[in-house]
Amino acid sequence: MTGAETLLETLVANGIDTCFMNPGTSEMHFVSALDHVPGMRGILCLYEGVCSGAADGYARIKGKPASTLLHLGPGLANSLSNFHNARKARTPIVSIVGEHSSGHLKYDAPLTSDIAAFARTVSQEIRTVAGPDSIGEAASATIAAAIALPGQIAMMIVPADYSWLAAGVPGPVVPKPIPALPAADQIEAVAQILLSGQPVAVVLGGAAMNPRALDAARRLSVATGVRFFADRSAPKLTCGRSVFAVEKIPYFPEDASAALNGLAHLILVEAQTPVSFFGYPDTPSSPVPETCAVSTLATRAEDGTAALEALRDLVGAGTIADPLMKADLPSLPEPGPLTLDAIGRIVANFMPENSIVSDEMISSAVPVLRHLAQGPAHDQLTITGGAIGQGLPVAVGAAVAAPDRKVLALEADGSAMYSLQALWTMARENLNVTIVIFANHRYRILDIEMTRTGAGKIGSSANNMLDLGRPELDFVSLSQGMGVPATRAATTEEFMAQFRAAVAESGPRLIEAVL
Amino acid sequence: MTGAETLLETLVANGIDTCFMNPGTSEMHFVSALDHVPGMRGILCLYEGVCSGAADGYARIKGKPASTLLHLGPGLANSLSNFHNARKARTPIVSIVGEHSSGHLKYDAPLTSDIAAFARTVSQEIRTVAGPDSIGEAASATIAAAIALPGQIAMMIVPADYSWLAAGVPGPVVPKPIPALPAADQIEAVAQILLSGQPVAVVLGGAAMNPRALDAARRLSVATGVRFFADRSAPKLTCGRSVFAVEKIPYFPEDASAALNGLAHLILVEAQTPVSFFGYPDTPSSPVPETCAVSTLATRAEDGTAALEALRDLVGAGTIADPLMKADLPSLPEPGPLTLDAIGRIVANFMPENSIVSDEMISSAVPVLRHLAQGPAHDQLTITGGAIGQGLPVAVGAAVAAPDRKVLALEADGSAMYSLQALWTMARENLNVTIVIFANHRYRILDIEMTRTGAGKIGSSANNMLDLGRPELDFVSLSQGMGVPATRAATTEEFMAQFRAAVAESGPRLIEAVL
Repeated sequence: MTGAETLLETLVANGIDTCFMNPGTSEMHFVSALDHVPGMRGILCLYEGVCSGAADGYARIKGKPASTLLHLGPGLANSLSNFHNARKARTPIVSIVGEHSSGHLKYDAPLTSDIAAFARTVSQEIRTVAGPDSIGEAASATIAAAIALPGQIAMMIVPADYSWLAAGVPGPVVPKPIPALPAADQIEAVAQILLSGQPVAVVLGGAAMNPRALDAARRLSVATGVRFFADRSAPKLTCGRSVFAVEKIPYFPEDASAALNGLAHLILVEAQTPVSFFGYPDTPSSPVPETCAVSTLATRAEDGTAALEALRDLVGAGTIADPLMKADLPSLPEPGPLTLDAIGRIVANFMPENSIVSDEMISSAVPVLRHLAQGPAHDQLTITGGAIGQGLPVAVGAAVAAPDRKVLALEADGSAMYSLQALWTMARENLNVTIVIFANHRYRILDIEMTRTGAGKIGSSANNMLDLGRPELDFVSLSQGMGVPATRAATTEEFMAQFRAAVAESGPRLIEAVL
Repeated sequence: MTGAETLLETLVANGIDTCFMNPGTSEMHFVSALDHVPGMRGILCLYEGVCSGAADGYARIKGKPASTLLHLGPGLANSLSNFHNARKARTPIVSIVGEHSSGHLKYDAPLTSDIAAFARTVSQEIRTVAGPDSIGEAASATIAAAIALPGQIAMMIVPADYSWLAAGVPGPVVPKPIPALPAADQIEAVAQILLSGQPVAVVLGGAAMNPRALDAARRLSVATGVRFFADRSAPKLTCGRSVFAVEKIPYFPEDASAALNGLAHLILVEAQTPVSFFGYPDTPSSPVPETCAVSTLATRAEDGTAALEALRDLVGAGTIADPLMKADLPSLPEPGPLTLDAIGRIVANFMPENSIVSDEMISSAVPVLRHLAQGPAHDQLTITGGAIGQGLPVAVGAAVAAPDRKVLALEADGSAMYSLQALWTMARENLNVTIVIFANHRYRILDIEMTRTGAGKIGSSANNMLDLGRPELDFVSLSQGMGVPATRAATTEEFMAQFRAAVAESGPRLIEAVL
């Protein structure tokens, strides 16, 4: 058995059966092994940022890691911004990076680089395979590092000759770690805070956004008046009118400060202390009031769901029967030119139950998400690390992870252009994704940021750097060029007809929403 | 004056008047300063890999650095693979990366990352601005590091608040370093080798590929029989039938070994010892014979051109009048289905004199370049670091650097998809680029590599990972979607008509060559 086959066997034995890849010469034996080791689905991506984003989306939905296969330092480099997002989400990923054959390294060939240096930007778990005999063991250690709580990107650097040489046995199956319940006195202390009568809010993150956790949250909210916010880096938010509504912390610091204003206590459940996206002149970086005490109910490595249930029982909220009021679907918009409000209403009305929404709407998000909160239950995947170009790749991974669910990629035009190659993989794998491009032909968010940062009036040169309209990107043409059928909608009626048709069918379809 | 304005003034005073950028919130003051400080041309790119590749192409043609402006760690990450190529070419680039405002860093916001760690993968010259007072000085130090011989990517990390606060004076103008002539005894020693009667070859790289250097090389070749090869990492190769033909070291190791077989001496002029791209089973990594002695005439930091002229005079080749025989243009191909040979003949016949060729043809290169060697004089820009996705961005930079020259981007289909966003900048800036996409719908080079690495027969799963034909990419549609007019050529006649029309006009135009 070659090293590559041993590696593949170890992955498959550990339930890692999907690999998003963009291989090169040094990974040819891994590619070849796909035909000799059953059980691994190789999914080709035209750009490495699609691989890393897809692996992120896959694990966020599937709850187990995918692998990625990347070519040397530059291939890894191209994946790093979406790995940055995955790092913030604490997504488990097994990242395999090919290296030159061990004897070739000393010659400083064109593609030689310090692969570990690239890896260190997003991971502390980096293994360079030391020889063909230890490749199976190294693979198991990498998998163990990836799934160690709370999850991370684990990197395995594989010299080409260790892939092609005869190798030792496959590595062991790694037991899945089970998160522990936080200490009883920690839960008790939080219960006291909730019962104190002071204004308290809880931030939910990590895995603590599942139906059980949200049900406990709802009962705690009814019993004690505590409010619930979502962590920015939460890998997945469950939303919709049949789901307990967790508040989002607004993007702009004034709004975030207003949302948290007056709180005496903030409780973290698998979450981080809230922080503004950016610092601005004369604006605090943290929206948490200075007098607010921050406590932790459960860390990202602990079982926040069980902790919430224990908390619920401690404060006597376990028996509360108060049913969740199911809000009405938003009304449909009037005919006319397309607006964000209209898109939100239409999507909320016609999205299938249990959809997955990959949200990279940026400046278009708020008016749309407002209505989605009244739509059917669905999962939202947000840009955990703020690095744009995530939305389409994450949609690829989510669709691979859940072929029976509709994925909606709601995507700003500027952001779409960072990783548009994802469309090709959607077409190739016939992924069940409806893509809506919000085509305002601007880096619109920067219009706002320009003013906010005090950079002043937007002059003509500056305006030129925010303008995507010269020439106008034609997303219908771009999408068709990668094999995804596409249409353009400039009115409410057009968008409604196109969106209904898109979600009714299986497979990818893109709608350019003209704004 | 704000820090951003001080930074811009320092750049412009140092002759750095072009910035390829993809800014975000932390760079808004730099963008704003474009309207307050005259002399800087900001060129917007839809993806950071286009910025870095364009800065590389610009400096390779212009002989002075451009700047890039990138947004935080993830923005820098997206630029790194083309910076890898620039690093191998020793291209001077002033890379400005925005950082969170200094007070915001400790909060671990979503976009917080270790920017210096990203920078270290391609550069040893990294400066983080320490305060608004020192921003001008830091800019000058960064410029000095970039242009220090032999040239490198110098990184300047600028916290947002140091951009927006009132700053000190602009930094000084940095004197341009002048490369020194190598020591006389070093040149003398090489002269003795050339006169020894043994088989000798010279590898030319760095700046030693200009008309003066090539003229000296020609005379040395006539006088002593010495052969000349081009360094793989040479930033620019001058080629064509009116130019002394420097041999290329073949891509595959057996061919490279055959080319260098029998040499007793190899002399490096601003060049690296040749090495194979990849290591393979049972194949030496170095094509240099074991008994061949390697000497250096000039390092990358020395004046190789002057050294070649001194060498020419020492061996008595200065007075040789032997004129360069101007080869005939290749004959035009017969009508019929399009082939690589036909493309090479047509391009060689109709490319304007003094064109710039950005070569990312990969598996299609050899049959085309064979004919270009008989075409009019032109400069070739090759993938110095082997990281694909360079060709179109480098063409952007070259066209900005030399608006009076025709740029030909000869581009493999697989490689094109790594940085296709470059087309939009070509359309926006009306750059004088003719793009030919070699559409074979395969990672064709990997068909060959799969066999070479001993990975065996290509099974159906492996084949799937090398196949770009399902669905077929439609480059006409993709190009039009980004505003670049495009046509498709499946026959010799179609390609000839389309290529002649494209080079006759100014502005970008793409031809999908169906292979």
